[in-house]
Amino acid sequence: MFSIFPIKGFIDQIDGFFCDGINAGLKSNNKKDLGFIYSDSLCDVAAVFTNNRFQAAPLKHYQRYKKGFQTNFLLINSKNANALTGEKGIEDINTIFSSLNFSVSNPIMSSTGVIANPLPVKKIIDGANRFNLEAKNGENLSEAIMTTDAYPKTALYEVKLQNGSSFKIGSVAKGAGMINPNLATMLCFICTDANIPQADMQELLELNSHTTFNAISVDGDTSTNDTVLLLANKKSGSYDKEAFKEALRLVMHDMAMLIVADGEGAKKAVAFEVNGAISNKEAQIAAKALSNSLLVKTALYGEDPNFGRIASTIGASGIQCDEYKLKIAYNDVVVYDKGEIFFTQEQEEKAAKVLQQSGYKVICDIGLGEGSFTAWGCDLGYEYVKINADYRT
Amino acid sequence: MFSIFPIKGFIDQIDGFFCDGINAGLKSNNKKDLGFIYSDSLCDVAAVFTNNRFQAAPLKHYQRYKKGFQTNFLLINSKNANALTGEKGIEDINTIFSSLNFSVSNPIMSSTGVIANPLPVKKIIDGANRFNLEAKNGENLSEAIMTTDAYPKTALYEVKLQNGSSFKIGSVAKGAGMINPNLATMLCFICTDANIPQADMQELLELNSHTTFNAISVDGDTSTNDTVLLLANKKSGSYDKEAFKEALRLVMHDMAMLIVADGEGAKKAVAFEVNGAISNKEAQIAAKALSNSLLVKTALYGEDPNFGRIASTIGASGIQCDEYKLKIAYNDVVVYDKGEIFFTQEQEEKAAKVLQQSGYKVICDIGLGEGSFTAWGCDLGYEYVKINADYRT
Repeated sequence: MFSIFPIKGFIDQIDGFFCDGINAGLKSNNKKDLGFIYSDSLCDVAAVFTNNRFQAAPLKHYQRYKKGFQTNFLLINSKNANALTGEKGIEDINTIFSSLNFSVSNPIMSSTGVIANPLPVKKIIDGANRFNLEAKNGENLSEAIMTTDAYPKTALYEVKLQNGSSFKIGSVAKGAGMINPNLATMLCFICTDANIPQADMQELLELNSHTTFNAISVDGDTSTNDTVLLLANKKSGSYDKEAFKEALRLVMHDMAMLIVADGEGAKKAVAFEVNGAISNKEAQIAAKALSNSLLVKTALYGEDPNFGRIASTIGASGIQCDEYKLKIAYNDVVVYDKGEIFFTQEQEEKAAKVLQQSGYKVICDIGLGEGSFTAWGCDLGYEYVKINADYRT
Repeated sequence: MFSIFPIKGFIDQIDGFFCDGINAGLKSNNKKDLGFIYSDSLCDVAAVFTNNRFQAAPLKHYQRYKKGFQTNFLLINSKNANALTGEKGIEDINTIFSSLNFSVSNPIMSSTGVIANPLPVKKIIDGANRFNLEAKNGENLSEAIMTTDAYPKTALYEVKLQNGSSFKIGSVAKGAGMINPNLATMLCFICTDANIPQADMQELLELNSHTTFNAISVDGDTSTNDTVLLLANKKSGSYDKEAFKEALRLVMHDMAMLIVADGEGAKKAVAFEVNGAISNKEAQIAAKALSNSLLVKTALYGEDPNFGRIASTIGASGIQCDEYKLKIAYNDVVVYDKGEIFFTQEQEEKAAKVLQQSGYKVICDIGLGEGSFTAWGCDLGYEYVKINADYRT
């Protein structure tokens, strides 16, 4: 038995963690662009990275550490992804870390922004050397890692165990391009003082990625920089695997939902729930095809219950399906059921009302088996085009 | 030896073929929405259909004919796709054909438009019974099959053989959603008086689909209605397999290019040429990933030579690649070569000039093998969102 409570504040509320964000001159307008997470004791680390074949330099730099290494410092910049920068990109990270005016162990770097530009090394060194490692300014950090994000993304929970002990787990993340899971960078940094064994960290991080970040993006279709990091300083002395697993899931789910809802220019967050597929894998294929379809996204934007596009996308996804078994509903409004179209004027108006909401479910029952998966997506409107046509400028 | 000449006019210039298009009340504003192709002698037929699991009723109706059947009548409507309409959709087609006030053999139907609406049977019967089967109004037919197309799509060629004989081949097509190959319907009707053996028809149609329509769409990722039909009345008595193959390729390539250039709201037609992949299959995967990427499309729209998005899309496509072997160019402007970024102010300006053109190549050399494939795509701007958010209304 355990209880999990959301609590106010940022990851700096967790014992032993410090963080801040500043402007180091990478972004214009004096916006924050460089941040850190510091721990006053060494942390175990687990990570999940992008499947993109062109992993950015920070990811390669991380992977050169010996497995099981411990760290106490994470440096994060926005505006430049340090991707497609070759060996020079990794050397730049080493130059930065060897030029710091404070001492840290096995420092990690994480970057997001434009691809294929050399990292502005001097600006980052000068900025980092102004850090106050005793700062607890989680809000500043959450802003410093933003690119096209409309708002910062954070979560914090306290977990109380039956033996009276407790631990905290919190996160700060960025990501907003999830309208197009193809390339939108997602960074998520999770800190905890739970006394979690190193082996559990990697296992639970991967396990929870499947139903959270992978449901909105990742898995083969990812940016060069996607990173989820888990840092554990063990300070609370408290741990329970089931409790930690659930708290970690909550944190990652919160981050994933905040990222979906912040789809570039998006006004709606939509759950695509696929049931009755012949396997979970096939349900996942169909659910992700729906959440990625341009024609579905633009219909959601137009608040048009055009379920033909939903059906056609499922048919085109390559999964086993049959139009005489398929059922489609917007929330509880069934519009198509096993070859019958329920699309009277009244039904269409009911469906249109669902689509006017800022969040709802598109439920598709394939009618062939037990496989299910829910993917999250959002609508696509003019704003998306504007943001992405102009991104580099 | 043979010569192929483009000639003016429509498929009705081919001996024995008649066609027309009228308004039957499916579209508003008296726009043409119903058309036919009639042959005064029986034609052999070959067809390539969508891979979508939910094939529309006209496709199922066609497939109920015995292999090797002959026809002299093709009926085509726009505005309603007769898709996801179950057995009723097929019955509707039979009702229409049994209510005609003229006699035809093994008639074929083809439909495009909104999915999951019952076919307006009476309007179509009434319209078809007003047809003049002796009409030669190719332009009317080309308009009647349009949905969101900005312009009609036709081609006509004459092929002269060394023995002095000659034949004609021509086409009329519709398709404009190719910005999103997921669901955009593409219909293409090809007529010829070449004396082609039935066996060659299917073989050459499939062969040429790979490098034409499949390079812009189709293959697993298709609408419920995609159809390419080849009708041969053999009237010329002239045939040469190599000559026909090349003429057919020209016709299909013309249609594919017209469809790409008419991408909904698109201003640019772009060839994504991938070379040096470990196989043609992998080159195809990368080329199609590029032509489908939202972030690439919006960068093209913004005329932004943001080649990081090109590289990242290749990396995310899952093909074998290595950033120290990759080369990227816009036409002849190399911007990235084997880990080196050629992106001086001067180079960026040169690249930007290429992107200001209405057509150009994005050339990616993977540097690992001999595999190559070219896919065509277009940019994505505000107009696409507008068209697709409002399509049903």
